[in-house]
Amino acid sequence: MSTNSTFARSREDLKSAIERELDELFRARMSVASAYGNHFVRLWTIAGASVLGGKLVRPLLLVESYEALIPMEPASQDSSLREPYEKHSLDNEKCTHETVISIASAIELLHYSFLLHDDVIDGDLTRRGRPNLIGAVLAETGIPAGDGSAADAGTSSENSLHWARTGGILMGDLLLASTHQTFARARLPHKTRLRLLDLLEHTITESVAGEQLDVGLGDRIIAPDLGTILTMCAYKTATYTFELPLRAAAILAGTSPQAENALSSAGRHLGLAFQLQDDLLSTFGEPSQHGKDAFSDLREGKQTALIAYARMTSAWPSIEPVFEQTAISVQQGMRLRELLIECGAEQFVQGLVDEQLRAFYELLSSTAAEIPERVRRVLLELARQLEDRQS
Amino acid sequence: MSTNSTFARSREDLKSAIERELDELFRARMSVASAYGNHFVRLWTIAGASVLGGKLVRPLLLVESYEALIPMEPASQDSSLREPYEKHSLDNEKCTHETVISIASAIELLHYSFLLHDDVIDGDLTRRGRPNLIGAVLAETGIPAGDGSAADAGTSSENSLHWARTGGILMGDLLLASTHQTFARARLPHKTRLRLLDLLEHTITESVAGEQLDVGLGDRIIAPDLGTILTMCAYKTATYTFELPLRAAAILAGTSPQAENALSSAGRHLGLAFQLQDDLLSTFGEPSQHGKDAFSDLREGKQTALIAYARMTSAWPSIEPVFEQTAISVQQGMRLRELLIECGAEQFVQGLVDEQLRAFYELLSSTAAEIPERVRRVLLELARQLEDRQS
Repeated sequence: MSTNSTFARSREDLKSAIERELDELFRARMSVASAYGNHFVRLWTIAGASVLGGKLVRPLLLVESYEALIPMEPASQDSSLREPYEKHSLDNEKCTHETVISIASAIELLHYSFLLHDDVIDGDLTRRGRPNLIGAVLAETGIPAGDGSAADAGTSSENSLHWARTGGILMGDLLLASTHQTFARARLPHKTRLRLLDLLEHTITESVAGEQLDVGLGDRIIAPDLGTILTMCAYKTATYTFELPLRAAAILAGTSPQAENALSSAGRHLGLAFQLQDDLLSTFGEPSQHGKDAFSDLREGKQTALIAYARMTSAWPSIEPVFEQTAISVQQGMRLRELLIECGAEQFVQGLVDEQLRAFYELLSSTAAEIPERVRRVLLELARQLEDRQS
Repeated sequence: MSTNSTFARSREDLKSAIERELDELFRARMSVASAYGNHFVRLWTIAGASVLGGKLVRPLLLVESYEALIPMEPASQDSSLREPYEKHSLDNEKCTHETVISIASAIELLHYSFLLHDDVIDGDLTRRGRPNLIGAVLAETGIPAGDGSAADAGTSSENSLHWARTGGILMGDLLLASTHQTFARARLPHKTRLRLLDLLEHTITESVAGEQLDVGLGDRIIAPDLGTILTMCAYKTATYTFELPLRAAAILAGTSPQAENALSSAGRHLGLAFQLQDDLLSTFGEPSQHGKDAFSDLREGKQTALIAYARMTSAWPSIEPVFEQTAISVQQGMRLRELLIECGAEQFVQGLVDEQLRAFYELLSSTAAEIPERVRRVLLELARQLEDRQS
């Protein structure tokens, strides 16, 4: 927080506004859900608590970029009406601060919907060390969510696990629907709404294609070459985490197509850097900081850029047998780490991160005409956070 | 077809129009998908073939009801513009025949999206005797989809099954998104679009709540009393199969709220009758006609109204031990059938079907002022088909 004084004040306000919006949305949905019984309400309650406990990185990026893109002072702390950017005012409707907050909140719902289906697909019961929605539903049936062994504990546990995973699928569906409802109802000129709907469709297509690639790589259906893995990282994470908020901000602020494209490219570079860095941190970082199970990527046999590079080196015959095991010991995990450093995989992937960041900085220089100074500051701050990142 | 001469001609035309719309939609999506590789295209291809091979019951009900509701002659065979019902014309936009066809097509996508996630949840690889999407994706990895034993055939098959089920989850997500995109983009006055979006949200909430109840009953999380089971049938099937198309037709045709409510109630009665009849046919019908595995409901331990009634009779101690088994023989299945007849469960559920149909006919008489004669004919034809139903 202290390293971030330029944005700290307004970021807190914006975060509160997003939280209020999400809180209202979940309250409204829980009220409707109450007609359908307690189990249904529980899904909404657990989901609401998870979403509101998050860092809200994506909606904050959207709102901060929007605030920086519109050619006037940032919103006052209350969420009163604001005049629309004139160029953007395709008819008499107004792009209010509320609309921006609601679209921002909706992309957090999309994120959580993806996480839920991801957890169902991966069979995960926890996320960042705490029970995820599936784990929480499971715990309510009397089965502890702390480990993955529930499936082996007899029919009743199997039923509970099935019930809990079904909750994950269904809540993911409900939140995917909610995301679209917010986009479809946005109080915007219809043409602007259509551009946002195009962006949402593109984002979902690409994220789903990325998830399919990821699962195909993990299930050994798709060959794990480096190119495919980098494509997967870009589709699965960069698109919805960075490109979506930046492009949505551009559309809402009514920027030129050139500016939207430049922001989109900037988002892709940052997003790919972020995902590759995530792979590095999962493998070499401090579990106490990144909150994931140490060696979980290695243990799950996840096909990352690290592994793709290692596969091309002479160290692979030492790495492969351990990597292909479904369970590895701490000692084996430590040894794999060493091998991945020795063979140059860590350095190579760090090089890819640097390359994406360099491309990002070059893009910012070459698009000075399209991207206003205040937006560049938001993006540079983001890149700085990324470079400092330990978790 | 021959029993249906009044509607046969126009129904064929309407079905073709819906098929053309769906074909165009899938072609467009496959074209976009091609940028993301062959595996992603395959999902769209398989889904498109399944959707286009269906009977399109729900979209046909929507379009026929709409045609019957608007106070003018049915659409000419080509899909040229038609004047909107004046009351409905909230601004200068027009509710064209194309828009009605597109909304109708979208509800078929919603139906298929529900089926996909249902199949993932139930672990099914076939539907109506043929591989479903999961079975088809599985078959392409070299694992036959005809039986459920793939999971036992080693790691490679487990991976294939995981990959195939992931395809089911992801394609369900994509089609749920597509449904919303069509509703959100409908060329309608914004207020009409908002009413359709409200209806879609209500439908998804209720269908998901119904699916959760169904799974909770099957997993023995929720007590299988008759009331819960009837509620589940209404939510899971009646809402989206009957209420959704009828209410969407009413909204598109700009009817009065009274007429929309009357159609909604009629749809609920027909829908509940349909689902209860489905349970009867699955248990007592001819597998060669209904296309399901004989005794599959019994084998899966599905909590139906039949079982809820039987549980309250003195026959239950004879039924329970077999019903609770995960695999039952043909002989055991035949015996269960007999017991369900002897204890009066079949007669009781048939009575529930008759009760819903009677309520439907009474509703039609008492709402003669709200529901135009031509719409009543569509509904009566539907009830007649339901009464004659063998599959």
